[in-house]
Amino acid sequence: VTSGRKSFGSDNHAGAHPAVLAALTIANAGDVPSYGDDPLTARVSTALAESLGTTPDRVYFVFNGTGANVIGLSLMLRPHEAAICPVGSHLDVDECGAAERVLGNKLLTVPAPDGKLTPELVRSRLNGLRDTHHVQPRVVAISQVTEVGTVYTLAELAELRRCCQEHGLLLYLDGARLANAAAALGCSLGAIAAHADVLSFGVTKNGALGAEAVIIMNPEVGEDARFRRKQLMQLGSKMRFIAAQFDAMLSDELWLHNAQHANAMARRLADNVADIPGIRLDQPAAANAVFAELPAELITALRQDWVFHTWDEDRNVVRWMTAFDTTPADVDQFVASIRANASAGVSG
Amino acid sequence: VTSGRKSFGSDNHAGAHPAVLAALTIANAGDVPSYGDDPLTARVSTALAESLGTTPDRVYFVFNGTGANVIGLSLMLRPHEAAICPVGSHLDVDECGAAERVLGNKLLTVPAPDGKLTPELVRSRLNGLRDTHHVQPRVVAISQVTEVGTVYTLAELAELRRCCQEHGLLLYLDGARLANAAAALGCSLGAIAAHADVLSFGVTKNGALGAEAVIIMNPEVGEDARFRRKQLMQLGSKMRFIAAQFDAMLSDELWLHNAQHANAMARRLADNVADIPGIRLDQPAAANAVFAELPAELITALRQDWVFHTWDEDRNVVRWMTAFDTTPADVDQFVASIRANASAGVSG
Amino acid sequence: VTSGRKSFGSDNHAGAHPAVLAALTIANAGDVPSYGDDPLTARVSTALAESLGTTPDRVYFVFNGTGANVIGLSLMLRPHEAAICPVGSHLDVDECGAAERVLGNKLLTVPAPDGKLTPELVRSRLNGLRDTHHVQPRVVAISQVTEVGTVYTLAELAELRRCCQEHGLLLYLDGARLANAAAALGCSLGAIAAHADVLSFGVTKNGALGAEAVIIMNPEVGEDARFRRKQLMQLGSKMRFIAAQFDAMLSDELWLHNAQHANAMARRLADNVADIPGIRLDQPAAANAVFAELPAELITALRQDWVFHTWDEDRNVVRWMTAFDTTPADVDQFVASIRANASAGVSG
Amino acid sequence: VTSGRKSFGSDNHAGAHPAVLAALTIANAGDVPSYGDDPLTARVSTALAESLGTTPDRVYFVFNGTGANVIGLSLMLRPHEAAICPVGSHLDVDECGAAERVLGNKLLTVPAPDGKLTPELVRSRLNGLRDTHHVQPRVVAISQVTEVGTVYTLAELAELRRCCQEHGLLLYLDGARLANAAAALGCSLGAIAAHADVLSFGVTKNGALGAEAVIIMNPEVGEDARFRRKQLMQLGSKMRFIAAQFDAMLSDELWLHNAQHANAMARRLADNVADIPGIRLDQPAAANAVFAELPAELITALRQDWVFHTWDEDRNVVRWMTAFDTTPADVDQFVASIRANASAGVSG
Repeated sequence: VTSGRKSFGSDNHAGAHPAVLAALTIANAGDVPSYGDDPLTARVSTALAESLGTTPDRVYFVFNGTGANVIGLSLMLRPHEAAICPVGSHLDVDECGAAERVLGNKLLTVPAPDGKLTPELVRSRLNGLRDTHHVQPRVVAISQVTEVGTVYTLAELAELRRCCQEHGLLLYLDGARLANAAAALGCSLGAIAAHADVLSFGVTKNGALGAEAVIIMNPEVGEDARFRRKQLMQLGSKMRFIAAQFDAMLSDELWLHNAQHANAMARRLADNVADIPGIRLDQPAAANAVFAELPAELITALRQDWVFHTWDEDRNVVRWMTAFDTTPADVDQFVASIRANASAGVSG
Repeated sequence: VTSGRKSFGSDNHAGAHPAVLAALTIANAGDVPSYGDDPLTARVSTALAESLGTTPDRVYFVFNGTGANVIGLSLMLRPHEAAICPVGSHLDVDECGAAERVLGNKLLTVPAPDGKLTPELVRSRLNGLRDTHHVQPRVVAISQVTEVGTVYTLAELAELRRCCQEHGLLLYLDGARLANAAAALGCSLGAIAAHADVLSFGVTKNGALGAEAVIIMNPEVGEDARFRRKQLMQLGSKMRFIAAQFDAMLSDELWLHNAQHANAMARRLADNVADIPGIRLDQPAAANAVFAELPAELITALRQDWVFHTWDEDRNVVRWMTAFDTTPADVDQFVASIRANASAGVSG
Repeated sequence: VTSGRKSFGSDNHAGAHPAVLAALTIANAGDVPSYGDDPLTARVSTALAESLGTTPDRVYFVFNGTGANVIGLSLMLRPHEAAICPVGSHLDVDECGAAERVLGNKLLTVPAPDGKLTPELVRSRLNGLRDTHHVQPRVVAISQVTEVGTVYTLAELAELRRCCQEHGLLLYLDGARLANAAAALGCSLGAIAAHADVLSFGVTKNGALGAEAVIIMNPEVGEDARFRRKQLMQLGSKMRFIAAQFDAMLSDELWLHNAQHANAMARRLADNVADIPGIRLDQPAAANAVFAELPAELITALRQDWVFHTWDEDRNVVRWMTAFDTTPADVDQFVASIRANASAGVSG
Repeated sequence: VTSGRKSFGSDNHAGAHPAVLAALTIANAGDVPSYGDDPLTARVSTALAESLGTTPDRVYFVFNGTGANVIGLSLMLRPHEAAICPVGSHLDVDECGAAERVLGNKLLTVPAPDGKLTPELVRSRLNGLRDTHHVQPRVVAISQVTEVGTVYTLAELAELRRCCQEHGLLLYLDGARLANAAAALGCSLGAIAAHADVLSFGVTKNGALGAEAVIIMNPEVGEDARFRRKQLMQLGSKMRFIAAQFDAMLSDELWLHNAQHANAMARRLADNVADIPGIRLDQPAAANAVFAELPAELITALRQDWVFHTWDEDRNVVRWMTAFDTTPADVDQFVASIRANASAGVSG
């Protein structure tokens, strides 16, 4: 990252919250059983289960988001079944084909410009039902926050779930940024989780070092989950250190404060660039990302000093992400730089 | 674990070395690129590559040992090829069939009572060569330290490697306890690694929280490794925190001091129980494990107060493991307890 | 099928050409080695290799089209690589996810209304190159005849191949109806095959009982093909009986006569319904299928007496297929029935 | 095969019975639906189901034995479950790792010198139950006839089934030579099938061209079988031609006559070589194979004129197989040749 400036490239560029590091030290005391049979894992699983509305035996800590997604889907799909997901979703394009490779299941993609599936979009992929030659749609896989930074309302989730139930589908929710979604909606984690059959909940991007969980809401799903986690290489031996990260995030609602802050920083950024000529917000800054269309030369100029992703090369759309530790000063410095470069470009 | 007593169940029951936790805090400063493109990962990969005798682009940090083994093998096996490994090896019995499930490759097992493959044992599985109906042996997969606590001498490794080269086989070395092996042999990590085409090097059991690496020694292997790590769900986003753990372990040879200490504690334990009537060492305590045959009632009695695994139910063989933080006092307390229970049993 | 009337449902509804059955009887004489080591398989492989422009060791007989496609692709794709194919291609929708399940590779689909990929469409999926998080496009997979009955011209194939070579891609050609394509283009099988790195050639639909082949044109591909065929369950034991079917099809160019005839019958059908009010050809009848848009009530009426597929429920498009044994009288009877029902509908 | 002499190499070296070829011609009349929706497939499935003791919807015709085994097992195994099978079984060594590759399931092998599993052997692999790190035994996979030509008695099957039921295991029976087993036991096919949850029944080796079936006996298994067959590339389009082969085999008990004859020829061979010095039968000739230990130089001498497999290079054990079309004269000519060569060797 450039010369000490805050990265707007990803919430993964941030480090860990001090409370998370502190929790590791606390968890380090003494010997404990490995592979999740330790008291801390039990305690944190219980706390997490309570906050999400399930039981502790349905909480499975894993290493990363791709692992969580693949294991989550593995609990819901038989070999000939498929998951419907948006074109461009993390599952579809950012996991190097893990679902196809590791599970062998097909993804049925639907274009969803705002990153959100709707009942209508889901229904558009429900052809070939019961036809032996066709994979059978079984799961609707969504992300909350979506890959383009939008957030399903609770009403939208409820409607999607109803659609799933009508058609005998299960709902998987990729919660790599679940905290940011809950913060954006002003609701509990459980209010979102209630609409899923299985979900992931990641805290890595929200101030942990590396800690994700697969959480089963539907008791008819996931009987084999403990074998699946082991077989798919996501069972940590010194599990207490993953549990400890969740412990820190759940304590005093750190997850919420971190997410609220990151979201606020994105909103501050979005609000403050809105009037800069040539800049157009591509999606509402609902959570901790700003997607904006910029003049190509402005993108080039900003890259000299700042780190961010170009999201869509063809349309000159960039993604600016904030993190739990982005400060108002970071945002203001960035905005000033954008404004200065934009003016230079206009006058140039 | 029972009432504050040291566990002899597994080196995974131990926590992390303070230097490892300290390294996490140091690594936490500022923003850095994710997914391994950060300076710390670069620096530690270079250091690790140098100590093992390869190049930094051939070092891949991953989450756990099963992940390391599966990715390591994935670099060496085409779909119809197989790995020869000992019956009872971790790969064979302790990874819930990950190799078969994730890679789809067959394991060709050979009974090896002391956990070590030999050229003769390898050759016993080289039948069906070039026969279309048979999987083709391509990899010899060994563990150093082995699953029963034995350690290949450098001469044995050299001989096995020669056998591999004669038969067009590659050698994979599971180094989940590589440090303990190097400490036992009094050699460098590189002296062992030199005999492998691909190996794993784990530091989790030796005082880290959770950090393993896949290391490619043979430059003709592993072209696709970065895709494989991602696709097989072992690419961490905040990679610096895995690199930091290796950083701590490589600094001032912490890996070696930890391993030497754990090995010494196992030797102390083995030496001090050797004269207890009814106890027979099943394998030499070459590294940090003691495998011993005990009277069944002694096993039962010890379980009241101590944590350890029964390795072989039928033969009443137990495994006692030591860790980097096992103290002489821990060992002596355990020995005293064994001795007391054994006497009670004899007199009983 | 209804009351002795010719089926227009699929070329798979037809039986086998008498010459194919006769070839089985001839092949039946005496004992021969199994699994393809017999003289007939050798002779027919040589003849087929010559007609396609490759060598006999690159011809692999298999059972069915899905098997041929999966094995063909398996020769070209590493785990993180993907095949670009048209939305709605057989590979994409009609093989129950076999490619994803058996190979674990992702398919990158592109909408192609006329069933044909173009360099422009291929390039639209060439994003994420060298990005560790993305599958890497490696194969362009087309069908000749396409799934909607269109036929690539040789110029189109040459252009597509050039595009592949520019971008380091390989070309796979699904030739389940290769004979119909060659007949339509008035070219040799080899003229089409020359543009592929690997192709399938199926004769089942063209008058055999069940016989397909995977043919490797690019000598740098397919080293492991014989293992792949066995492992993927497509190696027949009494191989002579698959070879015999190809023998019959190659003798006196039976493949060509059958295909020319089937194509002519489709053209006759297309030409004769063209003037019926309410009927619109959806694709040109380039090979042995007619895709037509019909009034919904006409579809319903025709179903009373005739067998055919509704291709697109939403658009009321049907598929009418002809086979090697469709007679002019069959077509004329069908046309008369269509015309009569259409008139009834109009007057009704 | 050498100069018109009958092959004793494999029952796959034989051609097809004339009645099977005749059945193809009969089945060829007219158009019928594809993919198994034709009347002949319905009729033959019903007949086969009746003779085995199941229902027609549980009969699935496939192409070959490896396909049948893989699909059969796919119906019974979840990802973390394993099949127990004898070392050296077809599944273990002769399918190029198809089960591991296509299903991803582990095989747990047990040495069984006579090719038969027993409850005791099964129990020897029932360790690690409920342990997350271990695959979970779920299926016992046997062959009837076994790979070394032995035949389970009905009592042995019943005992094995009871053992399965006690331990919550399912029984899979590879019936590639089921007819030979029934003929050997003098029982119906159903008497054997009754002990299996799923079995295969192959007629290829018994006089067909290429026709196998997966048959589900346990109604709680196999709900997804039709998708599995398609996805695993074993669904034939012109299915009537596989059904026709079974039709011929079921008509007038051709399967039984063929098998009885082949078995009788093996017995004739075994009986007539028993007194030749230096020859020792390695297994009883229970079905249509003779396994015999021979002097190495006799093996070499016989190879000049005859085709057969060396089964065990180290022990000089050969396999001589008979087929439905082996004649007494073929056997007598072979025996004379063996005797002559043996005498020459003795006198030499």
